[in-house]
Amino acid sequence: MASLKQLQLLKRFNEVAWRDKSWRSAVLMMALSSTSLVSAQQPALHLMPRPASLQAGSGDLAIDRNFSVSLSGYTEPRLDRAVQRFRHQLARQTGIVFAREREGAAKGASGKAEGTKPEAAKPDGAAEVLIVHTAHAGQAIQELGEDESYRLEVSSSGAKLTAETPLGTMHGLQTFLQLVAVTPQGFAAPAITIQDSPRFPWRGLMIDSGRHFMPLDVLRRNIDGMEAVKMNVFHWHLSENQGFRVESKKFPKLHELGSDGLYYTQEEIRDLIEYARDRGIRVVPEFDVPGHSTAWLVAYPEFASGPGPYEIERRWGVFDPAFDPTNEKTYKFLNELFGEMAKLFPDHFFHVGGDEVNGKEWDNNPKIQAFIRANNLKNNEGLQAYFNKKLQGIITKHGKSMVGWDEVLTPDLPKDIVIQSWRGQASLAAAAKQGFRGILSNGYYLDLGWSAARHYAVDPMSGPAADLSPDEKLRILGGESCMWSEYVNAENVDSRIWPRNAAIAERLWSPQDVTDVPSMYERMNAESARLEWLGLTHNAYYHQMLQRIAGRSATPREFAALRTLADVAEPVKDYAREQLATSEPTSATALNRVVDAVALESDAGRRFAELVDQYLAAGCRDEDAGTELRVELTRWRDNDAVLEPLAQRSFLVKEVIPVSQDLATTGKVGLAALDYLILGAKAPNDWKTDQLALLAQLQKPKAQLLLIPVSAVQKLVEATSGATVCSGK
Amino acid sequence: MASLKQLQLLKRFNEVAWRDKSWRSAVLMMALSSTSLVSAQQPALHLMPRPASLQAGSGDLAIDRNFSVSLSGYTEPRLDRAVQRFRHQLARQTGIVFAREREGAAKGASGKAEGTKPEAAKPDGAAEVLIVHTAHAGQAIQELGEDESYRLEVSSSGAKLTAETPLGTMHGLQTFLQLVAVTPQGFAAPAITIQDSPRFPWRGLMIDSGRHFMPLDVLRRNIDGMEAVKMNVFHWHLSENQGFRVESKKFPKLHELGSDGLYYTQEEIRDLIEYARDRGIRVVPEFDVPGHSTAWLVAYPEFASGPGPYEIERRWGVFDPAFDPTNEKTYKFLNELFGEMAKLFPDHFFHVGGDEVNGKEWDNNPKIQAFIRANNLKNNEGLQAYFNKKLQGIITKHGKSMVGWDEVLTPDLPKDIVIQSWRGQASLAAAAKQGFRGILSNGYYLDLGWSAARHYAVDPMSGPAADLSPDEKLRILGGESCMWSEYVNAENVDSRIWPRNAAIAERLWSPQDVTDVPSMYERMNAESARLEWLGLTHNAYYHQMLQRIAGRSATPREFAALRTLADVAEPVKDYAREQLATSEPTSATALNRVVDAVALESDAGRRFAELVDQYLAAGCRDEDAGTELRVELTRWRDNDAVLEPLAQRSFLVKEVIPVSQDLATTGKVGLAALDYLILGAKAPNDWKTDQLALLAQLQKPKAQLLLIPVSAVQKLVEATSGATVCSGK
Repeated sequence: MASLKQLQLLKRFNEVAWRDKSWRSAVLMMALSSTSLVSAQQPALHLMPRPASLQAGSGDLAIDRNFSVSLSGYTEPRLDRAVQRFRHQLARQTGIVFAREREGAAKGASGKAEGTKPEAAKPDGAAEVLIVHTAHAGQAIQELGEDESYRLEVSSSGAKLTAETPLGTMHGLQTFLQLVAVTPQGFAAPAITIQDSPRFPWRGLMIDSGRHFMPLDVLRRNIDGMEAVKMNVFHWHLSENQGFRVESKKFPKLHELGSDGLYYTQEEIRDLIEYARDRGIRVVPEFDVPGHSTAWLVAYPEFASGPGPYEIERRWGVFDPAFDPTNEKTYKFLNELFGEMAKLFPDHFFHVGGDEVNGKEWDNNPKIQAFIRANNLKNNEGLQAYFNKKLQGIITKHGKSMVGWDEVLTPDLPKDIVIQSWRGQASLAAAAKQGFRGILSNGYYLDLGWSAARHYAVDPMSGPAADLSPDEKLRILGGESCMWSEYVNAENVDSRIWPRNAAIAERLWSPQDVTDVPSMYERMNAESARLEWLGLTHNAYYHQMLQRIAGRSATPREFAALRTLADVAEPVKDYAREQLATSEPTSATALNRVVDAVALESDAGRRFAELVDQYLAAGCRDEDAGTELRVELTRWRDNDAVLEPLAQRSFLVKEVIPVSQDLATTGKVGLAALDYLILGAKAPNDWKTDQLALLAQLQKPKAQLLLIPVSAVQKLVEATSGATVCSGK
Repeated sequence: MASLKQLQLLKRFNEVAWRDKSWRSAVLMMALSSTSLVSAQQPALHLMPRPASLQAGSGDLAIDRNFSVSLSGYTEPRLDRAVQRFRHQLARQTGIVFAREREGAAKGASGKAEGTKPEAAKPDGAAEVLIVHTAHAGQAIQELGEDESYRLEVSSSGAKLTAETPLGTMHGLQTFLQLVAVTPQGFAAPAITIQDSPRFPWRGLMIDSGRHFMPLDVLRRNIDGMEAVKMNVFHWHLSENQGFRVESKKFPKLHELGSDGLYYTQEEIRDLIEYARDRGIRVVPEFDVPGHSTAWLVAYPEFASGPGPYEIERRWGVFDPAFDPTNEKTYKFLNELFGEMAKLFPDHFFHVGGDEVNGKEWDNNPKIQAFIRANNLKNNEGLQAYFNKKLQGIITKHGKSMVGWDEVLTPDLPKDIVIQSWRGQASLAAAAKQGFRGILSNGYYLDLGWSAARHYAVDPMSGPAADLSPDEKLRILGGESCMWSEYVNAENVDSRIWPRNAAIAERLWSPQDVTDVPSMYERMNAESARLEWLGLTHNAYYHQMLQRIAGRSATPREFAALRTLADVAEPVKDYAREQLATSEPTSATALNRVVDAVALESDAGRRFAELVDQYLAAGCRDEDAGTELRVELTRWRDNDAVLEPLAQRSFLVKEVIPVSQDLATTGKVGLAALDYLILGAKAPNDWKTDQLALLAQLQKPKAQLLLIPVSAVQKLVEATSGATVCSGK
């Protein structure tokens, strides 16, 4: 049963103030704010991804303005720049003006390379605090499987970082940055010995610049984020039905007619590749053929399978236009274009897409069907296999290995191709058995709005892949998170990638048994703050988008109410957004609604659910948790009354009023359930049935939003009677 | 007396729960959250600065994706770019993907010029929504007093902007952006007719790049902010004891030895001037002589009045080093340098500083004293007058008019010089009477931490200036806000300038009778959101700095407690920070403390004070206000208990625990006072005396912070007895 004190308290309230429901909630609200739930503790390690092995030492290495770094062994300008970046980031994390790098600190504070001049002379002769030793150079063009290991030893008197290659050095510097924390005495890194290397050699992030163009600064800051969490492949999805995003000097009509003017020049691309290389990151370009290519065919309908003409696609989905694999001129064109692009992109891998050809244009073209028959290709799949084989020849001719989505896999292709699996571990395992290398993306689609925990649980080596032979397992190179861009633009894309991408980065770097979810969330949220210093806008965007929605006439209280609602809502998951759209979304659709602003994973919702679990697990005897639940539920119940007036002034708020009303209901039901649980009184069955039916209604998306606390409140209601932990009180 | 309901409510509580003080507070907390204090209303106009005249029409001009702009009359590339900027900003404010400017919208979303290509062809033939007509060109080099007027007519069917020059056009575009608001139907601008022109022709912001180097991106975004509020002079303080920040090709040792490598190249400067010109902003450089010049004398001790050698100054204050006005080579050097700089900076005005020469080096140099005697210069002031006269000749020779601080004023100087007054309207008026033009900066020093209202109340034409003749008044050209940079760097400087600078911008632009303070605050806060879209970091920095202070181990509750405290604290005012420093601050001092993070003006503190006034003015009968006060006071009382554990883990939190404890006391005292006021019971005199003595203690700064709510709580205590509004109940 509930504690005597709680019960007495509640009963007294019943006597005097039961009529005003808000009183009951309020009284416990106070108890919360005068009770500290948290005790003092030493800062935990916030390393993400978690290193392969670590051993804590004793003491701290103080970080003060005399901190310095030296490079020894193999050096190169890239390492100098890495150290400079390290210094800037350390200055941002700590605010310290470092003695030797006063210039660096000032630059770091602005996050820009502008206004910088040759390094000032090093004035004083203090010993280096962090000694970095790199054994030898890496490859001139970064290669898959290069040594990325490093060893980092921190003691109270200094730190030593050793690595085989600059890649390991750069990873070690990031680890050091994650170690630095505020302490009672100042900033410091704890004494520790870390030996670290990645589990998988291919740890990528794909960004789709095709559907929504992503400006270069967006890409740069995301590459900074990748470096922070030790990802090493930026997969750049550069062409789509909605846009061809690369300047071609050989076929300028491609970008001129196929991009609405939104494309990257070759110079910009070279700069970005250099930027990524500086951070130990390979850039793999993707030119998606034979489908997903409407924007190409605007300029070159002569290579299409249909009659044309074509226009840049504005809608989302899978569309009919496809290259004509029976036309030799198609290959001549692709050969020349890919030759140009193979020079532009130095990486050894070249992604040709190959996914989601719906085959309609091929079906409707008698010449193509005749070709299939004449060449014994059986069907469209056979035709695509024929295309892939020829394409593979072209890619090989230009010195590259071909990467493609699941569909490119046909057994008779050479074994140097790499399969990127959007279908899952099964097809990855099947490919590995046939001798093909593969990377996993199924389970890592950031746009689907899954929780970080759900992504985190996806392991490339699980399911059918777990049964592979050791040799076959080596063919599973790693994985890539994918940011498809139907519903993201430069404004909110960071928030869809970060900090959640850090959980996927850890999955691909850390040992397979690193799976503790609460630890992951704690470290991910800690890393989130650090990512902000890099210029990522995954937190800052939120306030700004809510301000737009609320309008400048919103009072502080109204704005807070909007935020309270937005904090516990998430966009609908998977591909539900298309299904629930009232009008067909296109690339011209404004992404300015609450659904575009709310986080893909509600922190407040997650914490509330954890609190409910904690409360129920403790047999409803955890008073602090009960109080905190009551505070939150009360706030939700009363929030709609504050928000409603704003809905009279903003159409963007008006849209979410049904959700706001649902939140009020969620709060009411939750408070009623909590009353039963605190009193240890069994709720009437009818009441329970009614409430659960009501909550089931609230589970239905409105304004393309899900109200996250509903599930947890369902648990509270479930617990009010029946064979649950709290019923027997 | 208090309302019967309130009284009954409180008495019941007294019976059951008086022992637990938190109960009393809590019960009213709830009343607040279930009572809406705000009623629905149509969006107010959020124009800042307020136009000279406006007339509201009826209806709205809808802003949707077909919105378009056309330029007619005089056009130039600068106007095209202004329209493009306008489109980007409109896209950011609304999130709309404009049909004709899809490219523009994408760029705007990133806030960068990168990745942009020649404008895509305009696809559709819809009529222009905003028709802009500019009568004629402005001056090739923007001049003081150019016509900046514009007329803007918005109706439900379209809008027309007309101006004499591009300057007026750019101002009008900003006004249009401020008109656009979210409405129940979508985004729209209200029908209105505005006829506008500035009150003063010189409306400036000075940024000190000398003491802390300010990276170019900081300057650019501040120039963007200036454009938004129609300021037209960027005064660039480029040299100081702590740094000479400009590349000199003639005297490269100046920046090489005098800047720690932190200087602007001439190319960067030319770019920034172009950037400012594009926004209707003149750039006036300041090279401060003969004092404030230690960093110059590092390279050129031979022009100094003392024996040297010199080092870059690291401390703050007024220092001895000064140029030797008796050395003809000094003038030769300045002539050559200023010749070079006069070419680099095209503006007609050239600022030579001239302030705060303490004269010690002159006193200590017998040769200089002999020179004073030999030339009948009387004293050091006479010597500086001699220097100024020679300097004025040099500046004139290079085709410029000299600007200097108060000290440069000597009656026999030619009348083309401009006096910048840090001393006040009196010296400005005195100068005007002597025929000199002047601008006011006294009262506009942003670094002093005054409230926006206090800056707003300062009028260049008030005090002695009000009595000038019409002709003399014309010599008062306007004013400049000044951001001296002892305690700001790239990270927090925006927050010291914005949004408060908008209040000063309004003072200098709008009619003299625009003085309503609540309206100013409402409009300033609305403008603040818009300034964020421009990339200003005056809001975003706060969360990040508090995160650094709290550390990554902080729980959400601890972080919230830190924020609650920081929200009601302000840095000490004026020059108290030096006086209260425990060790001498220098340019190497980390600006990472709570005092560096908190806003110069606490919004929460201001709102609380307003609420107290409102409550007392209503004879303590405003229940809602009383409830809100109780909620806030309770939160403050209980906040320290949450924050204390974090102080065990962060030295930066630990520093402010005394302030946190004071906040707890403030909350307790305020709650006790409120109890008396609600009950209408007169407080014992002893109690009142004790509390006031206690609060007086809390007014003393700790950790260089002021606790803003203390004054308002003093008012509550004062009201508990004696001849106050609430005592007679």
